[in-house]
Amino acid sequence: MLRYGMVGGGRGGFIGAVHRQAAALDGMATLVAGALSSDPERAVESGRDLGLPDDRNYESWRAMLAGELARPEGDRIDFVSIVTPNDTHFEIARAFADAGFHVVLDKPMTLTSAEGDELARLGDERGIVFCVTYTYVGYPMIREARRVVHSGELGEVRKVYVDFRQGWLSTALENEGNKQAGWRTDPARAGAGALGDIGTHVEMLAGWITGLEIESLCAEVSTFVEGRAGDDDVSVLLRFGGGARGVLNASQVCAGEECAVTVRVFGTEGGVFWSHEDPQRLTIMPRTGATRIITRAGVVASDDSNLATRIPSGHPEGFIEAMGNLYRGAMQAMIAKREGKNLIGLAADYPNVHDGARGVRFVERVLESGRADGAWVRV
Amino acid sequence: MLRYGMVGGGRGGFIGAVHRQAAALDGMATLVAGALSSDPERAVESGRDLGLPDDRNYESWRAMLAGELARPEGDRIDFVSIVTPNDTHFEIARAFADAGFHVVLDKPMTLTSAEGDELARLGDERGIVFCVTYTYVGYPMIREARRVVHSGELGEVRKVYVDFRQGWLSTALENEGNKQAGWRTDPARAGAGALGDIGTHVEMLAGWITGLEIESLCAEVSTFVEGRAGDDDVSVLLRFGGGARGVLNASQVCAGEECAVTVRVFGTEGGVFWSHEDPQRLTIMPRTGATRIITRAGVVASDDSNLATRIPSGHPEGFIEAMGNLYRGAMQAMIAKREGKNLIGLAADYPNVHDGARGVRFVERVLESGRADGAWVRV
Amino acid sequence: MLRYGMVGGGRGGFIGAVHRQAAALDGMATLVAGALSSDPERAVESGRDLGLPDDRNYESWRAMLAGELARPEGDRIDFVSIVTPNDTHFEIARAFADAGFHVVLDKPMTLTSAEGDELARLGDERGIVFCVTYTYVGYPMIREARRVVHSGELGEVRKVYVDFRQGWLSTALENEGNKQAGWRTDPARAGAGALGDIGTHVEMLAGWITGLEIESLCAEVSTFVEGRAGDDDVSVLLRFGGGARGVLNASQVCAGEECAVTVRVFGTEGGVFWSHEDPQRLTIMPRTGATRIITRAGVVASDDSNLATRIPSGHPEGFIEAMGNLYRGAMQAMIAKREGKNLIGLAADYPNVHDGARGVRFVERVLESGRADGAWVRV
Amino acid sequence: MLRYGMVGGGRGGFIGAVHRQAAALDGMATLVAGALSSDPERAVESGRDLGLPDDRNYESWRAMLAGELARPEGDRIDFVSIVTPNDTHFEIARAFADAGFHVVLDKPMTLTSAEGDELARLGDERGIVFCVTYTYVGYPMIREARRVVHSGELGEVRKVYVDFRQGWLSTALENEGNKQAGWRTDPARAGAGALGDIGTHVEMLAGWITGLEIESLCAEVSTFVEGRAGDDDVSVLLRFGGGARGVLNASQVCAGEECAVTVRVFGTEGGVFWSHEDPQRLTIMPRTGATRIITRAGVVASDDSNLATRIPSGHPEGFIEAMGNLYRGAMQAMIAKREGKNLIGLAADYPNVHDGARGVRFVERVLESGRADGAWVRV
Repeated sequence: MLRYGMVGGGRGGFIGAVHRQAAALDGMATLVAGALSSDPERAVESGRDLGLPDDRNYESWRAMLAGELARPEGDRIDFVSIVTPNDTHFEIARAFADAGFHVVLDKPMTLTSAEGDELARLGDERGIVFCVTYTYVGYPMIREARRVVHSGELGEVRKVYVDFRQGWLSTALENEGNKQAGWRTDPARAGAGALGDIGTHVEMLAGWITGLEIESLCAEVSTFVEGRAGDDDVSVLLRFGGGARGVLNASQVCAGEECAVTVRVFGTEGGVFWSHEDPQRLTIMPRTGATRIITRAGVVASDDSNLATRIPSGHPEGFIEAMGNLYRGAMQAMIAKREGKNLIGLAADYPNVHDGARGVRFVERVLESGRADGAWVRV
Repeated sequence: MLRYGMVGGGRGGFIGAVHRQAAALDGMATLVAGALSSDPERAVESGRDLGLPDDRNYESWRAMLAGELARPEGDRIDFVSIVTPNDTHFEIARAFADAGFHVVLDKPMTLTSAEGDELARLGDERGIVFCVTYTYVGYPMIREARRVVHSGELGEVRKVYVDFRQGWLSTALENEGNKQAGWRTDPARAGAGALGDIGTHVEMLAGWITGLEIESLCAEVSTFVEGRAGDDDVSVLLRFGGGARGVLNASQVCAGEECAVTVRVFGTEGGVFWSHEDPQRLTIMPRTGATRIITRAGVVASDDSNLATRIPSGHPEGFIEAMGNLYRGAMQAMIAKREGKNLIGLAADYPNVHDGARGVRFVERVLESGRADGAWVRV
Repeated sequence: MLRYGMVGGGRGGFIGAVHRQAAALDGMATLVAGALSSDPERAVESGRDLGLPDDRNYESWRAMLAGELARPEGDRIDFVSIVTPNDTHFEIARAFADAGFHVVLDKPMTLTSAEGDELARLGDERGIVFCVTYTYVGYPMIREARRVVHSGELGEVRKVYVDFRQGWLSTALENEGNKQAGWRTDPARAGAGALGDIGTHVEMLAGWITGLEIESLCAEVSTFVEGRAGDDDVSVLLRFGGGARGVLNASQVCAGEECAVTVRVFGTEGGVFWSHEDPQRLTIMPRTGATRIITRAGVVASDDSNLATRIPSGHPEGFIEAMGNLYRGAMQAMIAKREGKNLIGLAADYPNVHDGARGVRFVERVLESGRADGAWVRV
Repeated sequence: MLRYGMVGGGRGGFIGAVHRQAAALDGMATLVAGALSSDPERAVESGRDLGLPDDRNYESWRAMLAGELARPEGDRIDFVSIVTPNDTHFEIARAFADAGFHVVLDKPMTLTSAEGDELARLGDERGIVFCVTYTYVGYPMIREARRVVHSGELGEVRKVYVDFRQGWLSTALENEGNKQAGWRTDPARAGAGALGDIGTHVEMLAGWITGLEIESLCAEVSTFVEGRAGDDDVSVLLRFGGGARGVLNASQVCAGEECAVTVRVFGTEGGVFWSHEDPQRLTIMPRTGATRIITRAGVVASDDSNLATRIPSGHPEGFIEAMGNLYRGAMQAMIAKREGKNLIGLAADYPNVHDGARGVRFVERVLESGRADGAWVRV
């Protein structure tokens, strides 16, 4: 059993609870410490809600870092889970990483690629497990999609379409006291709007599944809601290394959509399709054969997805379980490190600090292209 | 925080882990005791896997009952979760209920309706919370379906179709050492085959959603796999009080199906449809208007489902969360009782011991009709 | 090019126009004669609408029969298409068949099985092509389903589910001057209600696809709309020769449904699924492999469906084209007969007079079981 | 009944037969003349297949034009349907239009926008009906989508996504003797590849539904199959007048896809979705209400679609019927002109010569942007 502390995720938030449920799902970790809000009073109250002992219910992340370091090594937290607004990620993650704690950090990882690169360097240097919670790659069928592409069944990849459509920011919720909307639409705190919040998720999916690097891009960055500071809609043309091309759409003003994430990858020999609205299934469309459906835990699912699933086929798993798969992968790597091993492959399958750094660079380049009226820019 | 003990659910099982994940989901309960197998050695090993303290890691449910009763009242378990094979349900549940513990029990509740009625009587007499884990009624959109029917929007109910199709018992797995298949196809241990295992789930759905009682039924009870003792396929014609009619199909020999549960209710003014393969959505088909889709946590979802959901719309929840909703409802009722209140309605929304007893009676009557070559029998 | 005449199908009807569009689709037939209504004046007006020459625009089917017989053989109609209400089918079809004309006749073929058997006998005796327009077997993917079942891929058939759900008769439309509703709900004219109108369609699908005969059945025959003479909802348990079992539902009071026809066949090795709401696809679910999708005219479609399709894959075909496939099959058989050949197999693939007679017998037996409160009756 | 002649569409083609079936569907037109191939011998043979009289079975379109003009006015063809490869459209259409015949012409209308503009000018000048067969706008639910957008229910349009994905040109079919692939991938004959063949279809859909004009665009024009002369994949960012933005994807190398056309329009108050794979349904997603489904001919369908449908709800119509709706709209306009009226609105609802000219300009601008490495160009 691993011990962990959480920074952020106090009363009123959403993602903190998902992280805690996800971390608890496999009985591999216990929450033993927290600095659950930037407001000391709220932090302590939130910690009491969760039953944290008083001496580890910290008023600030700095107090938590100091307090945990002061404990004997076998009693300290093993890792920290950081679920604060984006603009605080860098400072907090750097401090814990520097002190040698494993880190689980929300995306986008930092506001600037310089910060992202710094964390990547630090993570490597300290030899820690550094997981960036790109939740969607935790879905079992996304792992199956990666396997299919890498198996060569689809031939050489030609075209990649990734889309993330939401509608919840179709109006200026940020002016109506919605706290989530407040910081997510504020570039100073979030780095970017829809681009950072959801565009990075599908950038990650494209890379995770295909293994291809984006070499250059051309972006239309839009703000449709009047008075909004950040972008709320982006469409990006992509050129990948090796000649494949792609289109990425991310929007939070697609009024009526909830969380419509889709991935389509086409190669010389066929295509593959996944939709977040039907996450238990993966559709494979060979050029010369019948379309096939792979289901989670079903008769033809492989280890790639089976290692990221808990219950029998036909019994739906969801978002919490997907997040749980990231935690599981990271925690298996932590346990291995404790035992002096270095896990690779499916056993420790999680998005890491380099994925996080690449995502921040992607955000910078898209904004750069947008400012240059859609000029192609190199990544 | 409630304390609970578990009977059954040790190494190698499936449903025990789901119960533990479900119970833990909302941070309302901790597992503090267990008698996790009928084999004492396996019980203790399984308890160690889960980190149970030695003094509450019992070798048998009888030891657990005695041990917990011996503890001071404020330190005892609040409830027991029983996830053993069906033939042991009655004895264990009766003992714990009789001692005043709240009970969470898997379905079908008992082997005979006499036993079921006895538990119902005892549950009422002791004033305990007695939850029977008909998991599917925990799905938020099933609660929304119930609301829609009860709102009168569909008019008077005329026809109800419920289906549960699986294929995993298409071959004689029970002869190949599959433990799950072993007891589930053995009428002596399970009471009935597909009928008890999955037929009861959809019988429950029909009643839960419509509020109608089955008055009589006519059943075709089949065993397709050679040498199998129990039924593996049933189709039942239903007559409800008030004149509605229905059809119930439950099969474990629909080769190729995983867990295809569907519900269709039609009234004078429209219909409603739900499928377990797309559980986040409910389809409402008014006779004179456009078909509408209600999504979990979406803009038109009501308290009926919102109180049974955790994360924003568009982020899928699944089977574990559905089971978690049963636990949540039961635990809220337990907490209320501790505080001297009696919760009703949505706040304590769980299938109870009377639902369980009715389910057992349904199984008996279906088997009776089957033996009488499909004669209509009264329920 | 074949010449045909039509009986019924004048102004105000629906199915007559579909038959004409279907017959014309492949450029194999021209409408040259008609007795388009039982009302002589309306018949003639309707014929003028369609551009029929005055001398073949008959006031009654008797006049048409006489008129055509009076023409030289090479100038007569080759076949008659009969699209009148059910109670007139027998007399008209018998007369034309007896005179040696090929016949295309709507289902249900007759009101009694004695009449059905008489037509079957006559059809055989005269050696004519006698097509009964069970439209749904004209869908290409239904033919593919038949091929899959007959190929043995699904093993031995165990369970067959067929459903036809409509909602248009949820209220007493027949009392509001709706002509279609008028005769279709009147047992004297239609023979049976939902059972005859749509139940026969799915009875046909079950037999066509599996090749199995219904040996006995047990039926719940309901009339939900007050004052209605005929049934508007049936549910039937089926036992097939060889041991397979089935369930057939047909309802016209499923408020909100339009024309929801589904077929599910499960065998020892897998299942197959088709839905009229997505008619271009067939889903095959092997017990031990990935679910596969066959699409109309797609890369893995076989001659069974390719011979019943006109345009490339991905370009939807619909109901008119399905009906057109029946006409095409029958007309190819007629042309072959003219040339002294007897086509069999896919080249002349249409439901014949024996299918029609079997359908009428099915209706009789279901009504018999219904009257006997759901007793099992032999077919 | 109108009389028409066809240019192109002889033996071996696909689209000619679809045009003839579509034109015949409503019994409003008869094929009386043809110049069915550029090869005189093949033309005559093809005409005989269709039963054309010898004197109107022409060896060339020039002969047909002369021959028809030589007939008395009441006996001439009313319109010509031109279904030849794109590079011949201009000359043939100009000649018939100039002679005062109504014209039905396949898209893309011409190879250059100068030619397109010339036809538009000529069409206006001669006062003829000039229909360009953008088949997809003939689907009833596309008309319903147009109505929904124009009704204002979705508020102001912000984002438009249109996609057309096919896979049939994933390999160099044009080198294997496939005639369709041959001319369609040859820019000299087709003008452009996937862009002209299918990109124009979705450009048309975007404009038809929203009423918005594309002001500027930025395109990635790709050729993935080695040795292919024309494009086989395009992705285009769009800016519409009024501030809306869009993304258009058209590809013929999405291996595994058949004919996947989708439209998504999002406004300030909601969105609308249509897919060619499920053409009978339109999904409306209001920002603040339940998602609604409109079905063809269903209870909430409006005249916009009801005037473009033939059979009852739930009975699928397809591609031939969609094409038939274009013919019907154009023919109703022709009949009205004959009677001295000018139909507007739904009664004469077809894509006209100006739509065609705009489509050709779109092709030119996309190619221009592609050559300029994705620079934004004004339309």
